[in-house]
Amino acid sequence: MAAKIEFIPEGTVTSAEGFFAGATSAGINKKAKNKPDLALLFSEAPCVAAGVFTGNRIKAAPVVLSQQRLKEGRAGAVVVNSGCANASTGDRGIKDAARIAKLVAEGIGLSPYDVLVASTGVIGVPLPMRRITSAIEQVVLSGEGGHEMARAMMTTDTFAKETAVRVRMENSQFTIGGVAKGSGMIHPNLATLLCFLTTDAALELDFAREALKKAVDISFNMVSIDGDTSPSDMVLLLANGLALGKPISSGSRLAGAFEQGLEKVCLYLARCIARDGEGATRLIEVKVDGAASLAQARLAARTIVSSPLVKAAVHGADPNWGRIMAALGRSGAEVEEAKIDLYLGNIQVVKAGTPLPFNKRGLIKLLEGKEVAISLNLNLGSGSATAWGCDLSKEYVAINSRYMT
Amino acid sequence: MAAKIEFIPEGTVTSAEGFFAGATSAGINKKAKNKPDLALLFSEAPCVAAGVFTGNRIKAAPVVLSQQRLKEGRAGAVVVNSGCANASTGDRGIKDAARIAKLVAEGIGLSPYDVLVASTGVIGVPLPMRRITSAIEQVVLSGEGGHEMARAMMTTDTFAKETAVRVRMENSQFTIGGVAKGSGMIHPNLATLLCFLTTDAALELDFAREALKKAVDISFNMVSIDGDTSPSDMVLLLANGLALGKPISSGSRLAGAFEQGLEKVCLYLARCIARDGEGATRLIEVKVDGAASLAQARLAARTIVSSPLVKAAVHGADPNWGRIMAALGRSGAEVEEAKIDLYLGNIQVVKAGTPLPFNKRGLIKLLEGKEVAISLNLNLGSGSATAWGCDLSKEYVAINSRYMT
Repeated sequence: MAAKIEFIPEGTVTSAEGFFAGATSAGINKKAKNKPDLALLFSEAPCVAAGVFTGNRIKAAPVVLSQQRLKEGRAGAVVVNSGCANASTGDRGIKDAARIAKLVAEGIGLSPYDVLVASTGVIGVPLPMRRITSAIEQVVLSGEGGHEMARAMMTTDTFAKETAVRVRMENSQFTIGGVAKGSGMIHPNLATLLCFLTTDAALELDFAREALKKAVDISFNMVSIDGDTSPSDMVLLLANGLALGKPISSGSRLAGAFEQGLEKVCLYLARCIARDGEGATRLIEVKVDGAASLAQARLAARTIVSSPLVKAAVHGADPNWGRIMAALGRSGAEVEEAKIDLYLGNIQVVKAGTPLPFNKRGLIKLLEGKEVAISLNLNLGSGSATAWGCDLSKEYVAINSRYMT
Repeated sequence: MAAKIEFIPEGTVTSAEGFFAGATSAGINKKAKNKPDLALLFSEAPCVAAGVFTGNRIKAAPVVLSQQRLKEGRAGAVVVNSGCANASTGDRGIKDAARIAKLVAEGIGLSPYDVLVASTGVIGVPLPMRRITSAIEQVVLSGEGGHEMARAMMTTDTFAKETAVRVRMENSQFTIGGVAKGSGMIHPNLATLLCFLTTDAALELDFAREALKKAVDISFNMVSIDGDTSPSDMVLLLANGLALGKPISSGSRLAGAFEQGLEKVCLYLARCIARDGEGATRLIEVKVDGAASLAQARLAARTIVSSPLVKAAVHGADPNWGRIMAALGRSGAEVEEAKIDLYLGNIQVVKAGTPLPFNKRGLIKLLEGKEVAISLNLNLGSGSATAWGCDLSKEYVAINSRYMT
């Protein structure tokens, strides 16, 4: 029997049973004093927890700390701040992150080892600890607090990114929700990706880790705003088991349903992040079929979606499809030019490597849409992948060239 | 005895003995009808010739043809056009390129196999052959024609890129010259790199190939405007031997002097290309020392210089050095955060991984200069490399998002 997976209206990270959140304004970024910038997520029952962290070899202090704490695969709370990434801050950074976890733990009655920490913001500047410690006490947790948390994580994000799904299969039912932030800081900075996922399903730790990795690989790992990977990137999954008795493992009857639900939440949030890239006016979706392998399909799709020239052409609704071919060619994926088919939306512009005549007006109109779909068939094998990104606008440059001071 | 290498005032690709060039306007780009767009380079004596070509797996027709013809390592002429890249043009593209070579060969009395072809411009559009064939007859060759050639290759380039050096050692003397074009097309397009180098030194073919590869690796291959590699990139070296008796081979007394001269010409032209990147207002130079290997030093330097966030920060003279650390961290080069030293110009901002207090005004002033030097010591090994790029401005987006039509 197939699972039934539905989005929950106004769904968020506190939609699953037993999760509470809240946020406050600690004034971490002096220029945006009243913006909420500190949030807390809490589960009333202990959680099996898994994380996926930045591939950057320079890791922010909260990444180092949370990665360490997740070795045992459990957690009960997450504290997150925007406005300061606590990255490149040396030993002091690690101490500060640990102290925040300790204060949160004392406040809500957990072991400090069960509190995970995340930060996003300017690099190389220590956290304003006095402001943060007094703000932590002010956070009020509630079952609707996911919305506040989503807002507190925002920086140059133009909308809050949150969703949840309800998964039903036979007589089992559980919820998976999440909040995320994408590209941008009030102080221009890295396109840090933070995402916190919760579920009231019960999960075996190994299964939680695998399912999270799989979902992240086809969603967040296929989003590229500008190719710059932040030292602070982090996706966390907390499962408190309140809605189900027996934990799901990889062989379980519900394993596939959980994976599908998690993918649905991650794909939704990933597309939100791409759509809301700094300065973006359009979402770009690149689908590559017929690659020699999955890895090559991923490589090709990601290279095309992150090509500055492709992004700038889409921004200008310029039907300059040669740039897509050029980006494909330099991606490192195996190609035979004479086999490539290329479509913009539903209009084929290249067939077996040869340009087709096309209606220029129709193509421009298509490129002017809010979502631009580029699809290729390399006709070499069965590798398929989809990547998401956004156009490159003058606003991106404006946001990212403003003085830090 | 050390070689003496001097820049020649107004030096260009025809500064070496026996080289002639000329250009004309074929009207290949209808919107810039009177701009010179077709140029010819000719040597009165047969040349040993070597080339380095794009790594893009989708190669323009002229790349395929010239690469083939260089297998025997000889050439006598090069014909180049701007305005149309003759890329993604199928079989027709190869035939067109071969026909142009044949017409040039007939006009100047060479075998067509000794004529190399290069094109830059819009992809996926066939060459306007009628206009090109009638224009070829109009080209007048002269010993000063290098300047015209440099101008005919220009597209959105804002200045012509040409230079030459005179190399003297004991009683030997020879000249090396070159012209190049960088990033940009009148029709917004790929940042195609074309460079033609000439010398009146006599070279063994193997030595010519090695010396060219070495010089390109530390110069053009270390320039990044936007990470997009064109299907048309090409660097050619023609050596006619008119100034020297015995050909230089890798063991020769003059080998080192030739290599130094060639590097000097290539570095000069590469820096011109970086400085003149589309929309650029500043040259960025990134030097990485102390990497675990040469390859890792190259990787780190290139990743930093091509990071959109670093480029945008430099554009805004924003002393946001955390982005440099983040780009380094994601480059794939081995790093230990606690060992890294980072300088902007001569101001150290990170010592052994820890931020140093710095004078913000001084740093901003430094970033406002025409050339911004970023240097890092990873303190892990002896790998060193330098890369060049430019800042990311709104003008880059404007140039690259204009309608193709």
